[in-house]
Amino acid sequence: MHKETIAEEFRKIQDEICKDLEELDGHGLFAENIWERPGGGGGRTRVLTSRHIEKGGVNFSAVEGDMPERIYKALGIGPNRFFATGVSIVLHGENPHVPIIHMNIRYFETDKGPWWFGGGIDMTPHYIDLNDARQFHEILKTICDKHNPDYYEEFKSWADDYFYLKHRKETRGIGGIFFDRMDETRGDKSKHFGFVCDVGRNFVRSYSGVFKKYYQKQYTQKEKEWQLHRRGRYAEFNLVWDKGTRFGLDTDGNTESILMSLPPEARWTYNYQAGVEEKKTLSLLRKNIDWINYTEEG
Amino acid sequence: MHKETIAEEFRKIQDEICKDLEELDGHGLFAENIWERPGGGGGRTRVLTSRHIEKGGVNFSAVEGDMPERIYKALGIGPNRFFATGVSIVLHGENPHVPIIHMNIRYFETDKGPWWFGGGIDMTPHYIDLNDARQFHEILKTICDKHNPDYYEEFKSWADDYFYLKHRKETRGIGGIFFDRMDETRGDKSKHFGFVCDVGRNFVRSYSGVFKKYYQKQYTQKEKEWQLHRRGRYAEFNLVWDKGTRFGLDTDGNTESILMSLPPEARWTYNYQAGVEEKKTLSLLRKNIDWINYTEEG
Repeated sequence: MHKETIAEEFRKIQDEICKDLEELDGHGLFAENIWERPGGGGGRTRVLTSRHIEKGGVNFSAVEGDMPERIYKALGIGPNRFFATGVSIVLHGENPHVPIIHMNIRYFETDKGPWWFGGGIDMTPHYIDLNDARQFHEILKTICDKHNPDYYEEFKSWADDYFYLKHRKETRGIGGIFFDRMDETRGDKSKHFGFVCDVGRNFVRSYSGVFKKYYQKQYTQKEKEWQLHRRGRYAEFNLVWDKGTRFGLDTDGNTESILMSLPPEARWTYNYQAGVEEKKTLSLLRKNIDWINYTEEG
Repeated sequence: MHKETIAEEFRKIQDEICKDLEELDGHGLFAENIWERPGGGGGRTRVLTSRHIEKGGVNFSAVEGDMPERIYKALGIGPNRFFATGVSIVLHGENPHVPIIHMNIRYFETDKGPWWFGGGIDMTPHYIDLNDARQFHEILKTICDKHNPDYYEEFKSWADDYFYLKHRKETRGIGGIFFDRMDETRGDKSKHFGFVCDVGRNFVRSYSGVFKKYYQKQYTQKEKEWQLHRRGRYAEFNLVWDKGTRFGLDTDGNTESILMSLPPEARWTYNYQAGVEEKKTLSLLRKNIDWINYTEEG
């Protein structure tokens, strides 16, 4: 399977998702920015700034070039040409009851042999609803189960570890699935490719239910304020802990495109006091919750 | 000179600065939060949330404990007890014409011998005015010159390098002074102590002129929006590049106190379009500008 075949399919997935999201929002259209990378390749950054999806970024990129020395040394290989392609999405809804959603699928190879796929979907509600969380994880489990009965458990737990704000002792949200380095030791290329495409093509479905449920829901000033503070946490995660973001910023990536994931607006208040509902959400921001079978104790 | 003498003087400096800032703002009072560090020591976090100083944090801390292994190895010394004390300040004005200001003085020692002082002051105007920039740097130069005729040039250039957003190819603002590892090779302890106390005690003077000039100035919606986007850059610097912040977050520091420097509110817009005035400021966000002698070309 040629790298161009993979990139071409990812481009199609970006197109399909943008079309679906425009329909979901019902008001705005994506603006596109096509860019080239000085070292080779480029991307299509698409941004939706609209009524219900306040800020949505759907990036496609396919870049190539000489691998920086410290990276190939860390990988234990010699100088090589690399190729990396992926689709990366973050959506911030206007309504505080609409969760933030993130999806990424990616493929990487070098001309010296190694290749792998990675990706994931994770959801960050400002207010956690246990039914929504269960349904979201059920959808993810269904996608995983079609490919490997062990994927969901492994990738769910990987997401808990990855989307974690160590300095806050909080998970980013209700997690989801995360996987990386899916290489020949874990199956052949077309098998992994089939899986990541399935993740990409089921992304909108994993989000549209909760979006439709809440995008027109009435909310209070207090709820909006809480949303802005939770978006502050989202910015903290992306800037402090997210490996992809930091790698991009460290290696002279396309900064505007990398930081498109940042919220349109965020707040930080010293020792911000959460209310009763907000505290309930905070108490659920921890690892190892089995969302599919979780019920409130008592 | 005993570490407690230094901590005591830093505490006094915190008191003096808080008093001066309350007077400057004229509306609010600092709220105090006293905290203890599980490993030893603690601090006094003071926050002003007021009309003109929208969010001001003035922290004092004096902590001690066993140095983590990877830190003493990086320093090339064996296991030891460390002691660290400092005053750290960030002020975000409500008015977009009032610059963000930062000051820090700190002292560090270990019971195995090594000790040093560090610190700095730097200013981040949302709109750069060349006269203000000159006056600010003149005040800093005057403080430096009293102690060593070479300090200003060295520490000004150090600030240019330190307060730099590599991923944006921008300095954080108009810089100021920054210094670190001022140890016995650079003078005796009382000499360095005299210098950092002078920096601390002149901080309010370096800021009050520009504050009084602008805090009641009329501003437009567009100027407020620009301020919020520049505050986004400030958050990026602190979360991605600031060594002190990252060290604190990595080593289980007091997160709320460390992140008090983050703006009360910030925005991120993909490819945000700067206007004519804003572009003038952007063009000045670079290293090696001699603010004291700088004049517009043309």
